[in-house]
Amino acid sequence: MQRALSVSRMTGNRSTFPDWYQAIVREADLAELSPVRGMMIIKPWGYGLWEQIQRDLDRRIKETGHQNVYFPLLIPLSFFAKEAQHVEGFAKEMAVVTHHRLKAEDGRLVVDPTAELDEPLIVRPTSETLFGDAFQRWIKSHRDLPMMLNQWANIVRWEMRTRLFLRTSEFLWQEGHTAHADAEDARAETMRMLEVYRDFSETTLAMPVIAGEKPENERFPGAVATYSIEAMMQDGKALQAGTSHYLGENFARAQNIRFQSAAGTLEYCHTTSWGVSTRLIGGVVMTHGDDDGLRLPPAIAPRQVVVVPMLRDKPEDAEVLAHGEALVKALGTQVALGERVRALLDTRGQRSADKRWDWVRRGAPIIVEIGPRDAAAGQVTFLRRDALRDGEKIASKSMPLDAFVAEVPAMLAEIQAALFAEAKARLDANIRTDIRSFEALAEHFGAAVEDEDEGSAFKGWVRAPWSKPTGAALEAVDARLKALKLTLRNIPLDQTPVSGPCLFTGEPAVEEVLIARAY
Amino acid sequence: MQRALSVSRMTGNRSTFPDWYQAIVREADLAELSPVRGMMIIKPWGYGLWEQIQRDLDRRIKETGHQNVYFPLLIPLSFFAKEAQHVEGFAKEMAVVTHHRLKAEDGRLVVDPTAELDEPLIVRPTSETLFGDAFQRWIKSHRDLPMMLNQWANIVRWEMRTRLFLRTSEFLWQEGHTAHADAEDARAETMRMLEVYRDFSETTLAMPVIAGEKPENERFPGAVATYSIEAMMQDGKALQAGTSHYLGENFARAQNIRFQSAAGTLEYCHTTSWGVSTRLIGGVVMTHGDDDGLRLPPAIAPRQVVVVPMLRDKPEDAEVLAHGEALVKALGTQVALGERVRALLDTRGQRSADKRWDWVRRGAPIIVEIGPRDAAAGQVTFLRRDALRDGEKIASKSMPLDAFVAEVPAMLAEIQAALFAEAKARLDANIRTDIRSFEALAEHFGAAVEDEDEGSAFKGWVRAPWSKPTGAALEAVDARLKALKLTLRNIPLDQTPVSGPCLFTGEPAVEEVLIARAY
Repeated sequence: MQRALSVSRMTGNRSTFPDWYQAIVREADLAELSPVRGMMIIKPWGYGLWEQIQRDLDRRIKETGHQNVYFPLLIPLSFFAKEAQHVEGFAKEMAVVTHHRLKAEDGRLVVDPTAELDEPLIVRPTSETLFGDAFQRWIKSHRDLPMMLNQWANIVRWEMRTRLFLRTSEFLWQEGHTAHADAEDARAETMRMLEVYRDFSETTLAMPVIAGEKPENERFPGAVATYSIEAMMQDGKALQAGTSHYLGENFARAQNIRFQSAAGTLEYCHTTSWGVSTRLIGGVVMTHGDDDGLRLPPAIAPRQVVVVPMLRDKPEDAEVLAHGEALVKALGTQVALGERVRALLDTRGQRSADKRWDWVRRGAPIIVEIGPRDAAAGQVTFLRRDALRDGEKIASKSMPLDAFVAEVPAMLAEIQAALFAEAKARLDANIRTDIRSFEALAEHFGAAVEDEDEGSAFKGWVRAPWSKPTGAALEAVDARLKALKLTLRNIPLDQTPVSGPCLFTGEPAVEEVLIARAY
Repeated sequence: MQRALSVSRMTGNRSTFPDWYQAIVREADLAELSPVRGMMIIKPWGYGLWEQIQRDLDRRIKETGHQNVYFPLLIPLSFFAKEAQHVEGFAKEMAVVTHHRLKAEDGRLVVDPTAELDEPLIVRPTSETLFGDAFQRWIKSHRDLPMMLNQWANIVRWEMRTRLFLRTSEFLWQEGHTAHADAEDARAETMRMLEVYRDFSETTLAMPVIAGEKPENERFPGAVATYSIEAMMQDGKALQAGTSHYLGENFARAQNIRFQSAAGTLEYCHTTSWGVSTRLIGGVVMTHGDDDGLRLPPAIAPRQVVVVPMLRDKPEDAEVLAHGEALVKALGTQVALGERVRALLDTRGQRSADKRWDWVRRGAPIIVEIGPRDAAAGQVTFLRRDALRDGEKIASKSMPLDAFVAEVPAMLAEIQAALFAEAKARLDANIRTDIRSFEALAEHFGAAVEDEDEGSAFKGWVRAPWSKPTGAALEAVDARLKALKLTLRNIPLDQTPVSGPCLFTGEPAVEEVLIARAY
């Protein structure tokens, strides 16, 4: 059977899943490793995805009352020292700028030793400290609150082991930072943005998630509470797709962010932060990809309908091209999923069969092929990427051009819904809720595989009752799970009543927690 | 006379121009210096401007056939060494990353000396070398050409003396990088993007410019030809607002960017690069600001109509707010300058007079004030920021709400045109073309002022015939001009026939060149 992609995710024991992921990223032309250690080049199709993600999410961030700003890339070392707790927890693997000049020496370019900075500067691994410093200067009175800011920026965290989109030394993200007069308002903001992420992930990315609170040991350093959305990848692992933190007064006290209340007293602000990153693109690949390549939800597809003209260097080519141009123009007047349809006529010089497979690999939701016969008959032949095959056969259909154009909005909405439904069914079917002992848990997940790139058989997640241990007791749980390469993902917001003992401590359970292997 | 701004640009000999500029940036709440040396925080109103600039320019960049990508922030030192010529010319003031880890030591955070990088990494001062490296890998055949890419990114160049938006150690920009099969195609691209910048600057920013080629000594290092657009600020100085470079085969040879031609031979590509930056915001301020603050062209105003309700903590407040909401909603259905009108109801807790002056300083094109009487009468009272005063008086007008809503699109188009016309008249009136000797030039511009922040009397530009000297002769010209704090700006594309001797060499002139003090 002809396949668009060079690697299947299904072969044997699925140990090829990481290879399959890399094959999609490469063959759908999303990104590649750069000559700079651990950093990626995001190519046009991959960056187009990020642009669609940005546009949709930026609208949601603004609709919830936030304004965009831009803060400096570099942060003085002393700013990190202010927040010892923050720094302890934060990976210390950061890019450090120590000099500000190069010089020519013996015909070579070297770092000028006389241009050492008085204080080293850190390439931002996150910007809480800079925003906090500005909040401390900008906020005087309760009338200045809430202050609700967001920035789109690049981030550097030195990673020893990288994987495109999922873990790279540089990535792109948005980071929201807000300050509020009291805990209630800050907590409401934390939950509001978690809900924005959940709805965005499910509605726009067609990627179902479980929203919940992270256990204490997985909190952002310095946070009072950290919430996440977790998505299930096709190897059964969890991907943390977004986080929202309630920071209490911790950062406000460290940075002296205070305001005069209506009553005239001086109070500390309550702050939050929240973010999602280019990691989401990795999530989309591992949620919707198949053995033919990527499948893109129409809401984020840079091109939703791609028209491939079958050209033969013959006089009738002109008619075929005119037919294609008319089609793309007609499609551009249609509205699907609340926006104008994004259509493209692919006039590149390759063979049309190669172009078709290229768009299959890239995951364009609808791919149209038109030849001289279609042009003459005023019809189109197309395939839907979400339902590419009928058994071994490619499931292509023909339709009069006008009917097709009228149909496209409904078809794109259907594809969006179908991709979500497929992923939702997989998530729902693969969370075990019947495991009642640590031994059963260990047996279910089987032995840990040493090399994470080797993958392992699909196990899904476990949702189990626990007693919510803290401190040393929680660390003990964490250590037992780590030995199985497992982690606590979150405590779902959407709880069902629990009874019986905790899976880990044997004490009475108080709630359910999600357990999974994770990226 | 009540003024919105604390500093006038007009006082005495205009020596307050730099103070006036800083006052606008501060009082229109565009940006501020951060605690990080030479780097700025772009605040919501300033970043909103940048978002409008990005949106409009990004559309133009895509319409001309370019695709967006994202390349790494950090560049290995050895990449710069590859292009000795490039490096010689390039300022060597760059941020250098030498370490990748911090560690705790005696309770303090320090750079971990064991985590020194094998090769230092440079925070990108521009990305020609990384794009070139990718071109060399991606381009195999003439079928891959032209390759036309663009990225929106942050850039770091260590600046000893900074001024917000105009010269900062970090700034935001877009950089286009393209590769072509021959000189003709690459030159056409260079000119196409120069024209995109010219039209964008004049149509969207309402900032008239002169497009032309830079003299040899002002070329981008390694370029065969550099073109610029130059705008006249209200102190008569020139601001280089955008550049477009034809790089010939220079970068292709340095980085081995070759393709197989249709004839089967291996040929070097011809490359281009082009960019504009957040510097444009400084240009907008110095083009359109007045003694009351900023005036924004509607095409880039984050909010085009701001409605300030006059609230008195009285029962009729509800009616005023409802009136304001209805107005903003009605405005949102209108289309001006090709887009939906961006209107805002300002419900902040300050006094309405303070809010009005705040929006005057920020330069919102139309500011509406509504009180209980307006609400009862179904009318609005508004002022146009481009024509704020009638003598000493604020020129406000009243109109029925429906008529006002219907009128807004035409009014915004009028304001856009009026701001351009005013700046164009200033540009046209202040280019002297009658200066025929170096002595006359020196007399016209007067003595150079030592401290550039002191400014000097408004002198405008001079457009003069020259013989286009090169090499040492050009360097001599440059030195004589530098002594007067003057520079050659560009050789306007739009030439008029010249006769007589060159202003500098006495040889027969061949073309006209623009001479000015500059930012």
